[in-house]
Amino acid sequence: MSRIFAFAVGTARSSTAGTPLDFYFPAPVINPDPDLAALIEGSFSSGVHQVAPGSLDRFAEAVGDPAMADVMRRLAAADRAMTAVRLDADEPIDSPAAAYLKLHLLSHRLALPNTLNLDGVFAHLPNVAWTDAGPIDPAELPAAQLKARLDGGHIEVLAVDKFPRMTNYVIPSGVRIADASRIRLGAYLGDGTTVMHEGQINFNAGALGPNMVEGRISQGVILGEHSDLGGSASTMGTLSGGGEITISIGKHCLIGANAGTGIPLGDRCTIEAGLYITAGTPVTLIDETGEDVRTMKARELAGGSDLLFIRNGRTGRIECRSNRKAIELNDQLHAHN
Amino acid sequence: MSRIFAFAVGTARSSTAGTPLDFYFPAPVINPDPDLAALIEGSFSSGVHQVAPGSLDRFAEAVGDPAMADVMRRLAAADRAMTAVRLDADEPIDSPAAAYLKLHLLSHRLALPNTLNLDGVFAHLPNVAWTDAGPIDPAELPAAQLKARLDGGHIEVLAVDKFPRMTNYVIPSGVRIADASRIRLGAYLGDGTTVMHEGQINFNAGALGPNMVEGRISQGVILGEHSDLGGSASTMGTLSGGGEITISIGKHCLIGANAGTGIPLGDRCTIEAGLYITAGTPVTLIDETGEDVRTMKARELAGGSDLLFIRNGRTGRIECRSNRKAIELNDQLHAHN
Amino acid sequence: MSRIFAFAVGTARSSTAGTPLDFYFPAPVINPDPDLAALIEGSFSSGVHQVAPGSLDRFAEAVGDPAMADVMRRLAAADRAMTAVRLDADEPIDSPAAAYLKLHLLSHRLALPNTLNLDGVFAHLPNVAWTDAGPIDPAELPAAQLKARLDGGHIEVLAVDKFPRMTNYVIPSGVRIADASRIRLGAYLGDGTTVMHEGQINFNAGALGPNMVEGRISQGVILGEHSDLGGSASTMGTLSGGGEITISIGKHCLIGANAGTGIPLGDRCTIEAGLYITAGTPVTLIDETGEDVRTMKARELAGGSDLLFIRNGRTGRIECRSNRKAIELNDQLHAHN
Repeated sequence: MSRIFAFAVGTARSSTAGTPLDFYFPAPVINPDPDLAALIEGSFSSGVHQVAPGSLDRFAEAVGDPAMADVMRRLAAADRAMTAVRLDADEPIDSPAAAYLKLHLLSHRLALPNTLNLDGVFAHLPNVAWTDAGPIDPAELPAAQLKARLDGGHIEVLAVDKFPRMTNYVIPSGVRIADASRIRLGAYLGDGTTVMHEGQINFNAGALGPNMVEGRISQGVILGEHSDLGGSASTMGTLSGGGEITISIGKHCLIGANAGTGIPLGDRCTIEAGLYITAGTPVTLIDETGEDVRTMKARELAGGSDLLFIRNGRTGRIECRSNRKAIELNDQLHAHN
Repeated sequence: MSRIFAFAVGTARSSTAGTPLDFYFPAPVINPDPDLAALIEGSFSSGVHQVAPGSLDRFAEAVGDPAMADVMRRLAAADRAMTAVRLDADEPIDSPAAAYLKLHLLSHRLALPNTLNLDGVFAHLPNVAWTDAGPIDPAELPAAQLKARLDGGHIEVLAVDKFPRMTNYVIPSGVRIADASRIRLGAYLGDGTTVMHEGQINFNAGALGPNMVEGRISQGVILGEHSDLGGSASTMGTLSGGGEITISIGKHCLIGANAGTGIPLGDRCTIEAGLYITAGTPVTLIDETGEDVRTMKARELAGGSDLLFIRNGRTGRIECRSNRKAIELNDQLHAHN
Repeated sequence: MSRIFAFAVGTARSSTAGTPLDFYFPAPVINPDPDLAALIEGSFSSGVHQVAPGSLDRFAEAVGDPAMADVMRRLAAADRAMTAVRLDADEPIDSPAAAYLKLHLLSHRLALPNTLNLDGVFAHLPNVAWTDAGPIDPAELPAAQLKARLDGGHIEVLAVDKFPRMTNYVIPSGVRIADASRIRLGAYLGDGTTVMHEGQINFNAGALGPNMVEGRISQGVILGEHSDLGGSASTMGTLSGGGEITISIGKHCLIGANAGTGIPLGDRCTIEAGLYITAGTPVTLIDETGEDVRTMKARELAGGSDLLFIRNGRTGRIECRSNRKAIELNDQLHAHN
């Protein structure tokens, strides 16, 4: 167990009034090995601190990892103060810098969604106007907008939000993102993830890759390898509507276009296009011979594999059939009933 | 009754050929009190006029409201001509400047949706290419694009539309907007409104706040306090598909993800995720004892409160049950049948 | 039959390492008339070449079309190398420049979707970070981002994708596009097409115009004249989920909000809001007297006209009724059963 939970050095931007707006950490660290932990402990005290760039020289020289050493050398050569964050344990977030560090850890693939303590993230992230003139405190924006207009231009305001767009901080390797405005910092995009224009990924949520994401991955939701989320498909998050169940979708699943799920799914599951399954939806389970097993709430099927959910076009009944490609797993499912 | 309906002074931008492209009014006024009305009448003639900035000095000194006085002083100090718009009555829109003024009134929360005469708004708003080089007449864009490319760059074209993005003109207090490209000038966002990435708000439409908006608020639609519009949820507008009924959603409603409504709803209503109710949808009303009342077109339930709409997972039938949280209002509903 | 299939001259941008990032062709040509074909053959060799701007002077003088001559004169006056592409036949794509040329042909309305050989387009389009600092090779982006941050700014990354946004290359006449980030180069937008914020058009897909597009037009899909695609409506593409059937939607159709289709439709068809029809959906056909004809897979109705698809609110059954506005065509449909 490392004595250091997480660490990063990077740049900060502030409002005219001096309040923090954002932090950029190009080489964040989680659970460093003993050598690096000792170096961090010897160089930085716990918590959030402004540091002079020159003070990073010694650290940059001593770091073993060449990529991190290179980043540190660049930071050390800068002409502005840096922010260093050293967290000794994964405790609730108590500062904007700590919030940004944890969001970076997720998007740098250093931590999976639902593995970090994110309590306090909303309370400590400032609301920011993200503009083509940089981040601006919303309270300072009207005056800035007026000034730009009087100069014949305008400020393009892209968002007013606590969470910035991931791609302005880190772009994980091996991904394609058709519209970067829809992915928040703190999203986890595994290698081979393609997010189409209609795809959206919240913070503390993601796709393990490879995946095709054309729907919405809500806070807390994880999409497993080789699963597709169809256009406008919905996954219920725990922040709104989804209650206490954390939704995950296993491997080789297909959630059809305009479909949705309020229950977690195992592997090789399909929900047909246009069908929304919530935890309380009555579902009739049908076995591999075509016989009805019984009707139950969908939550009883939570986490099951090899399930095919449809709404019968003749009767309007919602049915769950074993996926014919993997019928041998159906017995196991029945055993749980 | 004020002798002045609305008034504003601000900046304008024009095409190379001199046609108007957009107007920015930082401190618009509706139904001014008699003192301000008299000041406006004494300072500006009716209609749309270019005014020299210096001519605003006297007005700025005389205005009682400190915030407005401050804006006017800044405008008076500018080095470019300003546009003044004085509308004596809420008549059909007859100029681009008048269109922009009315859209500003809505987004500045000075008028609720459906309370302004917006006839002529499409005819008088110019179609504009909204770019990172400012607004450009689409007819002048190809030459500008070619020039930028020959210089090694390009022009980023964000939209080609009559309506600009609200946030470049006004950002109401107390809101979060995850993707500003989806909210048109003329949208009304009440205090406490959060619009997620999938949320979209048209002009003359809005949310009274506080609200969570993850779906589409069509032209003419109002979402009441403490109501949630789920991801990709649809509200039928009067411009396309919704016919003559104006849709509104009351307080404490929940329109589920991928759901939709073509009828107005009262308070404390729920539409389950994935269910779309149109005016002509046959709905079976079920009372609090679980007995069927009768089957009717959904439009007969328009405006009702404490309604829960689901599609039965066993039978495929669309049902409307009284919302158990507020069952005392159910009798009133039945009385209307 | 022209001896030249397609031709264009334009600008290119490259990574620091020299790999191509994008091409801009302001006046592409398809199937030129014999005079122009002869001029091209006499001026440029087959394939992709860098050309000095001055070498375009003679070509610009000789071109008959005044608009093309004007563009060529501007290119000839530039101070950077141009890229010329001459394709003698519509063969599989074998270079980034050829890919960009074919995508330009579609968006310039010089070729309809599904009429060009696009084999190899994914293999030959480079993945690019599209930013407010221009296109950047994703491998070169982290260093550029760090540099911008150390300078106190940041690079706004709009997308990381093989396909750029159409509007940065060509904006067809007579269109409105509420959010340009959702339309890829290679989309075909006919005159009179309005794409709302929720509309999305892939490459090799489009709307013939006039159309209202508030849903997703997938790769390979064509929307016919006077048809509306409702908010979040889905059309299954051949790249994901749609299998081998190419989807097209005829004239005067209405695909409701949150609806979808996995079968092609003829003219004057309606799918009610919220209903998704896939090829395998069982649909009960009902004739103009209200009698059931029979229940079939939706694919048997593929391409039919005057069809109204609903899911019955009483029974949950999916039904296809003849559209009452054009009932005379119903007999023809029945004859095919």
